Amino acid sequence: METLTVALGERSYPIHVGRGLLRNADLITPHLRQAKAAIVTNSTVADFYLQSVAEPLRGAGVEVIEIILPDGEEFKDWPTLNLIFDALLQRRCERSTTLIALGGGVVGDITGFAAACYQRGVPFLQVPTSLLAQVDSSVGGKTAINHPLGKNMLGAFHQPVMVLADTDTLATLPDRQLSAGLAEVIKYGLIRDLPFLEWIERNVERLLARDASALAEAICRSCANKAEVVAADERESGERALLNLGHTFGHAIETGVGYGQWLHGEAVAAGIMMAVELSALLGWLASEDVERVERLLLRAELPVHGAPLTVDRYLELMQHDKKVEDGQLRLVLVPKLGTARLVSGIRRAMIEQAIRRRCTNA
Amino acid sequence: METLTVALGERSYPIHVGRGLLRNADLITPHLRQAKAAIVTNSTVADFYLQSVAEPLRGAGVEVIEIILPDGEEFKDWPTLNLIFDALLQRRCERSTTLIALGGGVVGDITGFAAACYQRGVPFLQVPTSLLAQVDSSVGGKTAINHPLGKNMLGAFHQPVMVLADTDTLATLPDRQLSAGLAEVIKYGLIRDLPFLEWIERNVERLLARDASALAEAICRSCANKAEVVAADERESGERALLNLGHTFGHAIETGVGYGQWLHGEAVAAGIMMAVELSALLGWLASEDVERVERLLLRAELPVHGAPLTVDRYLELMQHDKKVEDGQLRLVLVPKLGTARLVSGIRRAMIEQAIRRRCTNA
Repeated sequence: METLTVALGERSYPIHVGRGLLRNADLITPHLRQAKAAIVTNSTVADFYLQSVAEPLRGAGVEVIEIILPDGEEFKDWPTLNLIFDALLQRRCERSTTLIALGGGVVGDITGFAAACYQRGVPFLQVPTSLLAQVDSSVGGKTAINHPLGKNMLGAFHQPVMVLADTDTLATLPDRQLSAGLAEVIKYGLIRDLPFLEWIERNVERLLARDASALAEAICRSCANKAEVVAADERESGERALLNLGHTFGHAIETGVGYGQWLHGEAVAAGIMMAVELSALLGWLASEDVERVERLLLRAELPVHGAPLTVDRYLELMQHDKKVEDGQLRLVLVPKLGTARLVSGIRRAMIEQAIRRRCTNA
Repeated sequence: METLTVALGERSYPIHVGRGLLRNADLITPHLRQAKAAIVTNSTVADFYLQSVAEPLRGAGVEVIEIILPDGEEFKDWPTLNLIFDALLQRRCERSTTLIALGGGVVGDITGFAAACYQRGVPFLQVPTSLLAQVDSSVGGKTAINHPLGKNMLGAFHQPVMVLADTDTLATLPDRQLSAGLAEVIKYGLIRDLPFLEWIERNVERLLARDASALAEAICRSCANKAEVVAADERESGERALLNLGHTFGHAIETGVGYGQWLHGEAVAAGIMMAVELSALLGWLASEDVERVERLLLRAELPVHGAPLTVDRYLELMQHDKKVEDGQLRLVLVPKLGTARLVSGIRRAMIEQAIRRRCTNA
C-alpha cells in the first residue's frame, strides 16, 4: 500500500493506494466519528463490492446503512440526490454519521455533495472503484450534480476524510471505463508532468492490459499531481483551473448529447484534442505535438473527435462553463507539452476552427 | 445607520441597520464582484420592495435579474430551490454574480443555500425585510431548505458578504410576523443577555407599536449577540447551539403540523416555553421564572402552548434534530434567566412532562 497526503491544514487527508484495501475495516474505522456509516453505491458496483466493504465494518461493530442508486451519469441529478437524503433521514443518520462513497466518479460526486448538504455537512470517505475516480474525481473535494443546462453546475467544495483506492476493483471495470480513466491520467502529463507523459507513452499497453504495477504507478503519479495542485489552490482561484484541460469542450459534449451517452473521460479526450488544436492555431504547439497527443489518446482507445453538434451549439453550451467571466470564455490551453495556461480573449473564429478540426459535422 | 461586524477573518462582513437603506445602491455596489446581480424575493415582498432595490442598482449600471418565488415556509423546498437554479443558468449567471436575498427568513435561507451550491459557491448578500430575518436568520451564514422529515435538514454554512437591514420595511410587516420576530429577540435575552431581557420587558409595547427607535435598538442588540456567538463558533461545535433555545421543540411543531401552518417564530415561542418548563422540572428555574417568560411571550402576542400533537409524535420528530448524538437528544435549557446550557441525558419521562405542561392535548 502506498499513501499520499492532500495537505490542507486541519482538513488534510490520506490517499491509500493498493490491493485488497476494500475489505480492510481497520483502514476505515479510525476515520468514523461514531459507530454508524452509510455506504452509497450504485446497482452495478453493489453486486461486486458492497458486501466486501459492509461485512468487515459490521464485524467491527459499525452499524452500516446501504444506499443503492441507479447506475449512470444520467442519474447524477436532484431526484437521485434526494434518494440519498430520504434514506439518511429515514435511517436517522446524524451529524456524526460518515457517508462512504463506493463507486466511480458519479457516485463519488453525488455522495460528496449529499455529505456537504446533509445537516449542513457530515464527514465522508471516498472508496473509488473506477480508474477515473481513483486518479482524479475522488481527490480534491469537488462534489456536484448536473443540471440539464450544464454539467456539475450545482455542488460544493467538501473534502473527504480519506480516499481508499483499491486497485483490485479495476479487474471488473469495463474496457471502455478503463480507457475513460486514462484520459485524465494523460491530462496530468500534458498540463504539468512531461516525464509522466513520456512514461504513459511507454506504458499505455501495459495499462490497457491491467498490469497491476503499471496501474498502481499511474494512480500514484496522478494523485501526487492532483494533491499538489489542490493543496496549493483548494477552491480554484488559480492553478486548479488547469486541471480542467479539455473539460470545457468535454462538458459541452456531455450536456449536448445527453448525460450518460459519452463517458466523462471520453468527452475529456475529445476536448483535449480541441484544446490542443487551439493551442496549435495560436502557434504554441507544432503539428507534430498535436499528432503525438492524438496518437497517445488513440492508443488508449479514446475518441479524438467530438460529438457531431453544430459549432454554434458547442459555443452555446460552453458559455455555461464555470470559468466564464463577464461573458468571456476562459480556456485551458497547452503552450508546450507538459505545461498549461488559462487563456481568455481568444477570438471566436479561432475557437470555431479548433472545434471544426475535431468535429467533422460541426 | 448603525454598523456591526461579524468577525470571521477574511470572511468578515458588516451588518448595516437603519432607515431607507434599501434604495441606497452605494451600500450594495462595493460588494458586487461584477456588474451583475440576481435579486431573489417572494411574490409578496416583490410588490413592496423589489423595484426599490432593483431600480437604483440598474441606475448604477448593474444588470439585475429578478427571481420571484412563491411566498411561504411550505415553499422552502427542492422544487423552489430549483426555480432559482433554472433562472440563474438561463440568465447565464456566473461565479462572480452576486445573489441578493430580499425577504424574510425563508427567502434568506433558500437564497443562501442556492448561493452555496450554484457553481459550487457564489457570493450573496442578505437584505432582510422581516423582523425575524433582521434579528436572526440573515446573520451567521446558516442556509437551508426543509425536508418532509425534518426542518432545515439540507443546507450549508455560507456567509453573506453583507447584511442590509432596512427598518422601514417593518412598516409593511403583518402583525403576526412582527410577533414571530420578537420570539427570537426574547431568545437572546433568555440565553445570554439578562439586561436585554429586562429592556424587552420594558419596551415590548413600543416594539409592537413599531416605534422606530425601539425596533432599531432591538435589532442592533440582537445582532450584536448573534455576531458575537457566530464569531466564536461559526460552525456550531459549541456555543452556537445555544441559539437554538426552543428550536428542537419548535421544529417538531413546524414539521408536525406541516410547514407554513405555524410561523417559525411562533413555534420557537412555544418551544421556549417547553424548554423553560423542562428547566424548571430540573430544579433550575423557579415557577416565577417560568411565569415571567410566559408573561413576556404573551405580551408579545406569541403562543405559549405547542401544537396538539401527541407526546410520542413530538419525541419522534425531535429525534431528527441536528443536535442528536448517538441517538441521544441534546436540548438547550436555561439554568437561570440570561444563561443557557446544552444538556443531554435527560430522562424521557421528564421531557414528556415538559411537553404535556405546554400542550394540553399531548
